[in-house]
Amino acid sequence: MYKIGVDLGGTNIAAGIVDKDYNIIAKGSVPTKADRPAKEIIADMAELCKKLCADAKIKISEIESIGVASPGIVDNDSGMVLYANNIGFKDFPLASILRELTGVEKIKMANDANAAALGEAVAGAAKGTKHSVMITLGTGVGGGVIIDGKLFSGSNGAGPELGHIVIEHNGVPCSCGRCGCWESYSSATALVRMTKEAIEAAKAEGRHTSMATVERVTGRTACDAMRAGDAVAKEVYDKYISYLANGITSIVNVFQPEVISLGGGISNEGQSLIDDIRPLITDEQYGGDVVKTADIRIAKLKNDAGIIGAAAL
Amino acid sequence: MYKIGVDLGGTNIAAGIVDKDYNIIAKGSVPTKADRPAKEIIADMAELCKKLCADAKIKISEIESIGVASPGIVDNDSGMVLYANNIGFKDFPLASILRELTGVEKIKMANDANAAALGEAVAGAAKGTKHSVMITLGTGVGGGVIIDGKLFSGSNGAGPELGHIVIEHNGVPCSCGRCGCWESYSSATALVRMTKEAIEAAKAEGRHTSMATVERVTGRTACDAMRAGDAVAKEVYDKYISYLANGITSIVNVFQPEVISLGGGISNEGQSLIDDIRPLITDEQYGGDVVKTADIRIAKLKNDAGIIGAAAL
Repeated sequence: MYKIGVDLGGTNIAAGIVDKDYNIIAKGSVPTKADRPAKEIIADMAELCKKLCADAKIKISEIESIGVASPGIVDNDSGMVLYANNIGFKDFPLASILRELTGVEKIKMANDANAAALGEAVAGAAKGTKHSVMITLGTGVGGGVIIDGKLFSGSNGAGPELGHIVIEHNGVPCSCGRCGCWESYSSATALVRMTKEAIEAAKAEGRHTSMATVERVTGRTACDAMRAGDAVAKEVYDKYISYLANGITSIVNVFQPEVISLGGGISNEGQSLIDDIRPLITDEQYGGDVVKTADIRIAKLKNDAGIIGAAAL
Repeated sequence: MYKIGVDLGGTNIAAGIVDKDYNIIAKGSVPTKADRPAKEIIADMAELCKKLCADAKIKISEIESIGVASPGIVDNDSGMVLYANNIGFKDFPLASILRELTGVEKIKMANDANAAALGEAVAGAAKGTKHSVMITLGTGVGGGVIIDGKLFSGSNGAGPELGHIVIEHNGVPCSCGRCGCWESYSSATALVRMTKEAIEAAKAEGRHTSMATVERVTGRTACDAMRAGDAVAKEVYDKYISYLANGITSIVNVFQPEVISLGGGISNEGQSLIDDIRPLITDEQYGGDVVKTADIRIAKLKNDAGIIGAAAL
């Protein structure tokens, strides 16, 4: 038997067929075109599932289940996407429609960050563990938590929003409405903001920096310049690392997982990122002298985490 | 059948026999005298258990299990208290010694804050729910989390230290070694500190306050004076409430429980405390427009929470 995992994003619908060991044996994607009616999006999703089966020479009857990773708040019990702003879904019965269109009875759903965490747990950086956390450092800070082998999403499917823990009381305004959320200090967006601020400040103070003009800053600008010896960039990087390690330490203290894996654009910095945050976490975490605390790793599955996690639901 | 719950504290060992509905049918306590050898403490604990059985006219063979709520980090699987600073335990095989002394085979263990949360979940403010959080606002800020009816303590028994989430980056130093922990802003100790600081500041600025001299400040000083119309006290209270609500909102966003109950000395402020923090949480929490979020309540069981929770382990 095989399973299908679908990662429904704002830009693309990506899907894959996995075998029992979570190897992807067929994979594809189609544009979401998020501004059209939800039913049309699901029709294309169903077609994609069927096309993958054809590609892999598998009958749809051999598909044990389809899992869908969706943005927003999802109710797996009722098979509804309760709210997903970026694709315009509200109280939308995704599961029943996909069931009807594919003939696959078992349709499972989860929030996309949560599904990615499950993917890393079953086949990625946290494979072999029962307690893990995945943190995605991208446009925002997303997070998923696996407890005793099961995906945790709170009593209502809306948890855990790890990026929306406040780490600076009355701090930088966050898109969620709070001020000082971890997301506002540790997302790629936040790193870009800090880099721009530092370039402006350096200019105002007459300090030299090799970093590009404010218009051309990306999440890599400060990291690259820091490695080339730029002192201003080093300050930006150190500040970013300080916030990142601080938030991760809180996650360690709360969840005490075996592994925390870092995904998203910033995680492309790789092992050097881990090497830079690890001492700060070791220094501040609770219980590190007494028990084994979390191993911090770079996530492994990249864009396949959502597909594999959805399939594993 | 009956169960015994033991709440091992720095000052007293409290214990109770509960029936199948978690009613306490016998209860007692003896001094811990924490500076003596651990084995002597457990000998007194065993004697207390036997005495309670005699009081309730129950044979020790009718006791199905003994649960022990201990401070510090506990490993339930091995029956060890790994580390508990305030009673001087380190890698101490509590369960096997208590088993030998009482003849009760099934000895369960948990951290005290975690056990209290389980107590509130099975018989207190969160009774009837499957997902709940209890937060103790005392000398420190403790927390316990129930997920899907089970006590959550991380992969290593050291979680969840809800008081040691940083809510103010580089903020007030905390006893744990971090700076800016929630505990440093929302414990009774923190409220006392804020009150003293406000009295000193008022004095320096020549502002009137009815609050006692710095030496006589308690956790109630600002609350009482605020209710009597003191403007300085109102500022202290509002600041405290702001931090308290801020931390609770992060807990809502992470755990999305059905109920969050507040215990510890500060919770004696009762429903007015809930009424004051509720709007701040509603305003900032994630998902409140879409799904049912946590009901915030005052904990019910007071000092019995640990006993009942330990019995329920």
